[in-house]
Amino acid sequence: MKALETLIHRMIDEHALTRATLIYRMFDALLVLIGIGAAIAGTQPSLPPHVVTGCLYAIAVIWALFVLDYLSRLWVAPLDRDLSGQSVWAVRREWIGSRIGIIDLVTVLPIALGALVADWTPTGAPLLAVLWIARFARYTTGLDMLWRVAVRERQPVLGVFLIFLLVLLVASVLAYHAEREVQPDRFGSLSMALWWAVTTLTTTGYGDTVPLTPFGRLLGGIVMVCGITVFGLLAGILATGFSNELRRRDFLRNWDLVAQVPFLHDVGPGAIADLANMLRPREVPARTVLARRGQPGDCMYFIVQGEVEAAVKPKPQIMGPGEFFGEIALLTGGPRTATVVTLSQCQLLALDIADFRAIAASRPELLAVIQTEADRRLGLGGRAQPAEKK
Amino acid sequence: MKALETLIHRMIDEHALTRATLIYRMFDALLVLIGIGAAIAGTQPSLPPHVVTGCLYAIAVIWALFVLDYLSRLWVAPLDRDLSGQSVWAVRREWIGSRIGIIDLVTVLPIALGALVADWTPTGAPLLAVLWIARFARYTTGLDMLWRVAVRERQPVLGVFLIFLLVLLVASVLAYHAEREVQPDRFGSLSMALWWAVTTLTTTGYGDTVPLTPFGRLLGGIVMVCGITVFGLLAGILATGFSNELRRRDFLRNWDLVAQVPFLHDVGPGAIADLANMLRPREVPARTVLARRGQPGDCMYFIVQGEVEAAVKPKPQIMGPGEFFGEIALLTGGPRTATVVTLSQCQLLALDIADFRAIAASRPELLAVIQTEADRRLGLGGRAQPAEKK
Amino acid sequence: MKALETLIHRMIDEHALTRATLIYRMFDALLVLIGIGAAIAGTQPSLPPHVVTGCLYAIAVIWALFVLDYLSRLWVAPLDRDLSGQSVWAVRREWIGSRIGIIDLVTVLPIALGALVADWTPTGAPLLAVLWIARFARYTTGLDMLWRVAVRERQPVLGVFLIFLLVLLVASVLAYHAEREVQPDRFGSLSMALWWAVTTLTTTGYGDTVPLTPFGRLLGGIVMVCGITVFGLLAGILATGFSNELRRRDFLRNWDLVAQVPFLHDVGPGAIADLANMLRPREVPARTVLARRGQPGDCMYFIVQGEVEAAVKPKPQIMGPGEFFGEIALLTGGPRTATVVTLSQCQLLALDIADFRAIAASRPELLAVIQTEADRRLGLGGRAQPAEKK
Amino acid sequence: MKALETLIHRMIDEHALTRATLIYRMFDALLVLIGIGAAIAGTQPSLPPHVVTGCLYAIAVIWALFVLDYLSRLWVAPLDRDLSGQSVWAVRREWIGSRIGIIDLVTVLPIALGALVADWTPTGAPLLAVLWIARFARYTTGLDMLWRVAVRERQPVLGVFLIFLLVLLVASVLAYHAEREVQPDRFGSLSMALWWAVTTLTTTGYGDTVPLTPFGRLLGGIVMVCGITVFGLLAGILATGFSNELRRRDFLRNWDLVAQVPFLHDVGPGAIADLANMLRPREVPARTVLARRGQPGDCMYFIVQGEVEAAVKPKPQIMGPGEFFGEIALLTGGPRTATVVTLSQCQLLALDIADFRAIAASRPELLAVIQTEADRRLGLGGRAQPAEKK
Repeated sequence: MKALETLIHRMIDEHALTRATLIYRMFDALLVLIGIGAAIAGTQPSLPPHVVTGCLYAIAVIWALFVLDYLSRLWVAPLDRDLSGQSVWAVRREWIGSRIGIIDLVTVLPIALGALVADWTPTGAPLLAVLWIARFARYTTGLDMLWRVAVRERQPVLGVFLIFLLVLLVASVLAYHAEREVQPDRFGSLSMALWWAVTTLTTTGYGDTVPLTPFGRLLGGIVMVCGITVFGLLAGILATGFSNELRRRDFLRNWDLVAQVPFLHDVGPGAIADLANMLRPREVPARTVLARRGQPGDCMYFIVQGEVEAAVKPKPQIMGPGEFFGEIALLTGGPRTATVVTLSQCQLLALDIADFRAIAASRPELLAVIQTEADRRLGLGGRAQPAEKK
Repeated sequence: MKALETLIHRMIDEHALTRATLIYRMFDALLVLIGIGAAIAGTQPSLPPHVVTGCLYAIAVIWALFVLDYLSRLWVAPLDRDLSGQSVWAVRREWIGSRIGIIDLVTVLPIALGALVADWTPTGAPLLAVLWIARFARYTTGLDMLWRVAVRERQPVLGVFLIFLLVLLVASVLAYHAEREVQPDRFGSLSMALWWAVTTLTTTGYGDTVPLTPFGRLLGGIVMVCGITVFGLLAGILATGFSNELRRRDFLRNWDLVAQVPFLHDVGPGAIADLANMLRPREVPARTVLARRGQPGDCMYFIVQGEVEAAVKPKPQIMGPGEFFGEIALLTGGPRTATVVTLSQCQLLALDIADFRAIAASRPELLAVIQTEADRRLGLGGRAQPAEKK
Repeated sequence: MKALETLIHRMIDEHALTRATLIYRMFDALLVLIGIGAAIAGTQPSLPPHVVTGCLYAIAVIWALFVLDYLSRLWVAPLDRDLSGQSVWAVRREWIGSRIGIIDLVTVLPIALGALVADWTPTGAPLLAVLWIARFARYTTGLDMLWRVAVRERQPVLGVFLIFLLVLLVASVLAYHAEREVQPDRFGSLSMALWWAVTTLTTTGYGDTVPLTPFGRLLGGIVMVCGITVFGLLAGILATGFSNELRRRDFLRNWDLVAQVPFLHDVGPGAIADLANMLRPREVPARTVLARRGQPGDCMYFIVQGEVEAAVKPKPQIMGPGEFFGEIALLTGGPRTATVVTLSQCQLLALDIADFRAIAASRPELLAVIQTEADRRLGLGGRAQPAEKK
Repeated sequence: MKALETLIHRMIDEHALTRATLIYRMFDALLVLIGIGAAIAGTQPSLPPHVVTGCLYAIAVIWALFVLDYLSRLWVAPLDRDLSGQSVWAVRREWIGSRIGIIDLVTVLPIALGALVADWTPTGAPLLAVLWIARFARYTTGLDMLWRVAVRERQPVLGVFLIFLLVLLVASVLAYHAEREVQPDRFGSLSMALWWAVTTLTTTGYGDTVPLTPFGRLLGGIVMVCGITVFGLLAGILATGFSNELRRRDFLRNWDLVAQVPFLHDVGPGAIADLANMLRPREVPARTVLARRGQPGDCMYFIVQGEVEAAVKPKPQIMGPGEFFGEIALLTGGPRTATVVTLSQCQLLALDIADFRAIAASRPELLAVIQTEADRRLGLGGRAQPAEKK
């Protein structure tokens, strides 16, 4: 039982990169796509009835699998963390309220409730299978960022929406007055004028309702220009929010990773903070060539997880978590002195040559640490190439 | 009389967060929504006459309430500030010219004037109730920012609009020449061609006027591309403006709040300026859990207003304005050592873990102040956990 | 003759802010608007012939005035600068090639050439009056910035347009294949498919050509998403360009202005550079109240040009170019200690309170200069208020 | 044979700026435009058959030329780099996989494969000539940047697309329910509703499918607003990505170029890094006037490649790679003291006056280097003008 729990946990862990979890995810994604496809196909009037029935069955089966997935995740949730005194049920209750828990609940619950109140026909509960697209949210950290930006910039965004509403309402009152006598079937009520205003202000422009009077058209032109301005404001606000949020996220993640690199323990916190602002994480599979002897080097790497092998003489050197490599080409400005291949799935931090130079210029102590290690390696490797550029 | 004045003042104060003001605001918002809804519904031709009459009465009643609100605000305006030698009427005159005063005037005056010149029918003065949406501007600081950005970036924005107009006019002259013979009913005058150009340049594209000749279509394609470029320019300019304005606003607000934290009086102005750039204000209601013992800590808080209770042993500790908490988890990198709950409505300044690390790295004196206090607290709490990471 | 030349020069000088130049500019703008209005009105088929004739005459008269303006500007061009050995004709030739010269040539030349090749009817040469809108470019520095941004970001912008063209061409070939059999009148040739693709990729969506096949609609959806992505790329590139350009322009202008403030001569270039990054220029007319005694102060001012009067006791103090004021409220955090009014049209540099605090924190030498002067003034003014906050 | 190889290599080298390569590129671009034009024209039903045949022949001939170009490039690929032990075939294999190699393959291969499976008629394989537009990618570095930005910002971009899909699916299910009974021919299946949703969410708005029910229109309005918000998010994310990428690219390129300027060898790496952030590269043809005596100077130049001649007395001075000029006007604030003309095609690094002042303020050692050289030159030139501003 415990073994099964562990097995399931290993298979559905979102952060792992083993073959089992990858296959599980691909299967999950496939089910989502099939389910949504079946929901769309089921409403096609031209389809023969037995295909429609097949679609309905497919959705039911996939739903059952997702319920199983939900229960499994709920079951193994306590394995994800040390309990620290909490009961397993408290941890499970917490998981239900977590982001992943809510996404999974949205996957299984609405369709079940829908089946209770509506019938299981193509135009009923199975349509809720479109919500399964939310399952992909599990694999991207982008949504969290979008959410944080939305929260942070809510004041100016609300200001923009207020302007939007004000323009919308004023424009529709004016258009209603200008057009209602000329085309009473199009602008016969304020709500019709609102429909015109919203299609115009968002620059959608269906063309089903178009002003005909000179004043109506002048108004339309102004509303359109307001529309692109509102759009520009929104883009501007969100651009600012993203810029700040991205910087913050990168810094935080890198700080944690840099803290695991022993070479950097003696470097002051200022240099660490600078470095954390510059490193870019890279996830690479096993047997990837990271550097090829003789080619120009454009970055150096810090290993966070996994192992790499540098094909140096007299015998290949294996480096593991906390070590760095690729710095010689950056220091000398010459080509790579060795081919480096990953032995296992690796998590690396890449320091771009541009950033390397900037940080080496402003933080000589960091450069010294790297230089010392590079000198040691060049000596070790038994090669004659001196590190001229100190 | 004085008591009534104070009572009203307390109820309508925009900055307070008491139950009375919140209920008043919700009621205000509800009236706005009902009023606008009634204005829209009143023009619906399919509605029975007595419902339309009801809508008109509703608008009139809400208008009367807003007049009452306006007069009350005018009356109690002097309570908002110390008079410093000004007469109460001078303060009231000033309030009329203030942002809130103008918004409130826009709420009550146009509809009153409209009722004088037009009649009180669904298509007359009551339509001006849509202006009531502006009342929401009272609750957002976003509009001020939008306005400041508009003023600051007016030169390039005007440049963009000039390009817009130039493209518009040239394109409509060319389209007029290309199309007027093929479709005289669509492009029969320059003003018709202008209508086509504006719908195309803003990428609205109603489709009521579409070029048919090859040259006209080529021109149309170019105008569309110009349109998205103009849009991009506008978004770009406004993004830059927002970025600067947001930074400025946050800095200013935080500086004022930081100045109220006595722990930071001995820290130099450079550290204060850095800190003011990083803090994020948070408004939390009473009885909110800010930190839960055992959970990871992602920020520390400075209290500006209100009180919080930390559930430490031997007895809970109450902290008030000018104190900070949550720093231990950031310093040790471990979980929260105590659960902290707000006792009253609190105004806090949150220092994110990312920013904490950055500022601790560049401003050791600030770190020392926080570290000292953390050590004292860990000692006070009688717990053995030492602050290893110094 | 010389006097007339000087008189004209004074009237048409773009940088001056005298009453004469302002009236001249307003008159110029009015002529442009009347001319464009007449060109648009002239093509209205419903207008009686004598009104059309009036429009044509109006355009001719305005054109003649613009020719006069052009010749006058050409004549007085040498007055704008010291000749330094150049002949007046060399300066005039140079003026013809300058930005203003080209704008003015575009105003007068095309319409004259047009009158030679086409006839002077509403659909002929007078339509070129729409080019007069370019005359407004004279009054905005925004266009220069747009141009510089375009030049600087041309590489990525060209990249975006290349992607745009690639998507356009590939999409139209695919749509041509998918739709040409179903609707040969809409997608019967590649150029028709291109027309559909461009209206879709720019999200204009006239709706005159719409895919009907399932594949065509799927393609359409993809093209639309590409469209908004291309748009986002363009906005993103231009936002970055603007951000850099705005910073550069402000820095340059402020540096020149700061250099004229004698108080700052002893401050190091680093502080000057910081200050130049923060100051905001303000152009205020005479008799404007810049600060009102008792009100909170949110910025201090450096005078570049013009004079202001501070209503201090025992007698009002007049300050001129190179002096600063408004610093006391920023230093003490209290209200303004004096009302300050401009005596003439002034050019000022405003230092925002947010920026003042930031720069005072990082540049103590600058704070000292300002503090010293503030102390002297408080002593001078005979008021007891000491400058506690040092 | 070797000579021919070298000749071809010289002609097709993308980085060279000789007359031969420029002509070759223009010819290449012309062929691309003719080819695409022929592909578009070929499908025009109104064209006489012999013109269509001509178009088909033209495409075939151009294709043959491109095959020749591909083979030539493949042949001379080894000349582009020192082999360092690799065989020429290894280099050629590598070239095939390089960016240019893939672009060229896309130019020649699909059309050849197309000719095998489809027939050589206007609606068959020749349509693939539209892919030739990709050949322009060779001449812009913008696409690389776009690609890097896409990779770097893929997480939030994927988040936005997920939101896009979620809104799309949910909106189409709701619209399907609201509209399918009112207009079964427009919203009769979920896929039809999806078509409406995608045209609305991208704000394209063809207008072929428009909601008619009140709920459908309300939904439509919400979808449109979501559309512009999604667009704003995308623009915001990409703006941030571009900002970072542009800074990175400029820094890297300038660092390499600055390293070739001997005057800067004694300056510390910090100053070099600052300088690399500020320089702007400029490519100028021979006989270009870079500075004109007596005119105001707005930037100084470092020469990376090529030669310039300064018309100073007693005899003109020629400067080559590694030297700088134009600094005197920046140092004195006066006009240019000499006219400088390029003698050959030059690669320069321009330091803007704004940046010059900023860097001179923060890096006095750099200013000293430039000042020393300026003094020497003013002495050398035998002119009396002293460098007062030190």
